[in-house]
Amino acid sequence: RINGDRLWDSLMEMARIGPGVAGGNNRQTLTDADAEGRALFQRWCEAAGMTMGLDAMGTMFATRAGEDPEALPVYMGSHLDTQPTGGKYDGVLGVLGALEVVRSMNDLGIRTRHPIVVTNWSNEEGARFAPAMLASGVFAGVHTLDYAYGRTDPEGRSYGEELARIGWKGTEEVGARRMHAYYELHIEQGPILEAEGRQIGVVTHCQGLWWLEFTLTGRAAHTGSTPMAMRINAGLAMARIIEMVQEVAMAAQPDAMGGVGQARFLPNSRNVLPGSVVFTVDLRSPDQAKLDALRAEVEARAPAICAELGVGCAVEVVGHFDPVTFAPDLVRSVRGAAERLGYSHMDVVSGAGHDACWAAKVAPATMIMCPCVDGLSHNEAEEISKDWAAAGTEVLFHAVLETAEL
Amino acid sequence: RINGDRLWDSLMEMARIGPGVAGGNNRQTLTDADAEGRALFQRWCEAAGMTMGLDAMGTMFATRAGEDPEALPVYMGSHLDTQPTGGKYDGVLGVLGALEVVRSMNDLGIRTRHPIVVTNWSNEEGARFAPAMLASGVFAGVHTLDYAYGRTDPEGRSYGEELARIGWKGTEEVGARRMHAYYELHIEQGPILEAEGRQIGVVTHCQGLWWLEFTLTGRAAHTGSTPMAMRINAGLAMARIIEMVQEVAMAAQPDAMGGVGQARFLPNSRNVLPGSVVFTVDLRSPDQAKLDALRAEVEARAPAICAELGVGCAVEVVGHFDPVTFAPDLVRSVRGAAERLGYSHMDVVSGAGHDACWAAKVAPATMIMCPCVDGLSHNEAEEISKDWAAAGTEVLFHAVLETAEL
Ligand SMILES: NC(=O)NCCC(=O)O
Ligand SMILES: NC(=O)NCCC(=O)O
Repeated sequence: RINGDRLWDSLMEMARIGPGVAGGNNRQTLTDADAEGRALFQRWCEAAGMTMGLDAMGTMFATRAGEDPEALPVYMGSHLDTQPTGGKYDGVLGVLGALEVVRSMNDLGIRTRHPIVVTNWSNEEGARFAPAMLASGVFAGVHTLDYAYGRTDPEGRSYGEELARIGWKGTEEVGARRMHAYYELHIEQGPILEAEGRQIGVVTHCQGLWWLEFTLTGRAAHTGSTPMAMRINAGLAMARIIEMVQEVAMAAQPDAMGGVGQARFLPNSRNVLPGSVVFTVDLRSPDQAKLDALRAEVEARAPAICAELGVGCAVEVVGHFDPVTFAPDLVRSVRGAAERLGYSHMDVVSGAGHDACWAAKVAPATMIMCPCVDGLSHNEAEEISKDWAAAGTEVLFHAVLETAEL
Repeated sequence: RINGDRLWDSLMEMARIGPGVAGGNNRQTLTDADAEGRALFQRWCEAAGMTMGLDAMGTMFATRAGEDPEALPVYMGSHLDTQPTGGKYDGVLGVLGALEVVRSMNDLGIRTRHPIVVTNWSNEEGARFAPAMLASGVFAGVHTLDYAYGRTDPEGRSYGEELARIGWKGTEEVGARRMHAYYELHIEQGPILEAEGRQIGVVTHCQGLWWLEFTLTGRAAHTGSTPMAMRINAGLAMARIIEMVQEVAMAAQPDAMGGVGQARFLPNSRNVLPGSVVFTVDLRSPDQAKLDALRAEVEARAPAICAELGVGCAVEVVGHFDPVTFAPDLVRSVRGAAERLGYSHMDVVSGAGHDACWAAKVAPATMIMCPCVDGLSHNEAEEISKDWAAAGTEVLFHAVLETAEL
């Protein structure tokens, strides 16, 4: 069995790095805090006898040797970066849970045929640099390295520059590794497991996503002396598009999500009608046809809303992944492990995207979920219990042992 | 007559300081560019034989001596600070037009009984530090000095600190001066004069304003894994309030304005429903009862919109002035000067707030307006013609001469 106390202590120690303002974390990717978190993780991996690899996207791969020099490694992992108002567990549980699996193997003197690799993917969150799951996307061949290096944060700094600046740009070619299998433990970030009273979510699918970044062009003008009839009001157009997105998502229930998390007015002055407004619409569905229909409807209705106000409307896709079906063999391993260990479980569809979604393009992959309080995530108040963390890690341990062969 | 070429050259020279990105200016108050603009203005005033006074709010007062040591000065002025996307004329014309009046008096060897003071008020725009017309408001006793010093910009820097930092914090007590009269030349910032083909706007009134800063509290949560029914979506509430403000202003036509120029999502990440949203509603009317009714309706309807979504709603007044009636004697001087000079003119109500509105609390005050192309202001593309600038300044010259007594 894994050591739940040690796992919890490591989670709490990592959470000291890049503290937020309300008990959670702000350890955004490629910040100084991210570098500090990586260094701690590296020390822990080395103390556990693993050797660290680092690729050109900054993804960290800590390897525990296997018995068979020919066998491909079994990968486990997730991410240590957080949202600006992030929790202590989103991503971190998957990385440190994987580390705990290796520590437990060491404690128990377990050897596996396949090597084991614990992975910390760079920029999973996509908060600072869109899209999310950027490094695993390059790994899977979905994005080029140049595309990734050129992504910029709101201050205009590029991924490539920032990765070099924090000192975590490796030389290993991205995507050169081959995986026997990929497992990712993650908190659910939704309310179902807790509501249903289950300890383990057996993740069979992940819903797909479109991120549509709208740039609306109005006319910057005085709020006091510009007659209502002469306004070209990009902010009003944004308001109507936000309402429309809500309508479209509600009309497509169930299995449809729509919302806006990021919006910027320019010049953003109280007495200037915005000259432009930039915001991102986030659309999701586990059903490919529904996902694409959501996008099509939003893209069809937004220009009409803008046209009525004389506002210019441009849209760019800044994030996308199709719905994913995880590898049935690995899903069975997870379900079997939960059964054997006596944990209550149910099959679930991941609402959020994960590095496992891209890993699934190049290897058999799946995920294990544990509940989180009130389904809350991307919020500093994100919370899980020590028992939930331990149960999820235990299932990861047993599933990986089966795949990596004793 | 004033020298239109010299005036235009000075406008163009000032516009080189704090350039924008599209031909206009970004010379926001208490920035390094503001300090540079102030220094240039001071050099010009001293070259014109004036002596500079500086008060504790950073307002600059350049005095040309009068013949009668007992007579109170006649003030002219406006502001040199700009919006983030500001034009070259908003405020600047009123300051440099006043300087041109003094330069012309010098050229023509004109002496006046009353001293003449050319004024550059600090932070008229209110873009960096709300409210607008902050220094003239302290001068008129509407705000305390402590209130003004404590106002903060979006980065949390205070007015008092920034004023000291740029080196333009004077020792003169704010509001200690007494004025015989106050004249302000300004571009219209609206479309009426150009549409009506008039060279001069005789400003009889100024409409009033309420700035309501809303802080909506939702729940930061994942855009992908948070079911639609569980969202506490502060961004959606803001969208509905923006639409409501538009409705309220349209229903109150004519003589009512409503809009939103500033909005901020927190944490502002694409995959996080906003935990909170902060935005400012700008409401205006020349009619006191209508102005207050606009505010009352917005303040009544916004909480209901929020309540329906479970969103918290707090509102703070961050700017306000009542509608102003300018001094009839001075208005007559302006109208008479336009008549004598043969300029087409009409009476207008100012849509924007001006330092003249606060000066009117402590002295007879009025304004002169000149047209601007398409009524566009608070936009880098703001434009006026050299002839319009000269005509407005000529009227200022003649009105001031009448009030200051030859
Ligand atoms: N797990 C997670 O929050 N991933 C970020 C990508 C997404 O928005 O789904
Ligand atoms: N003239 C001008 O733009 N003043 C700023 C104050 C206002 O918003 O009316």
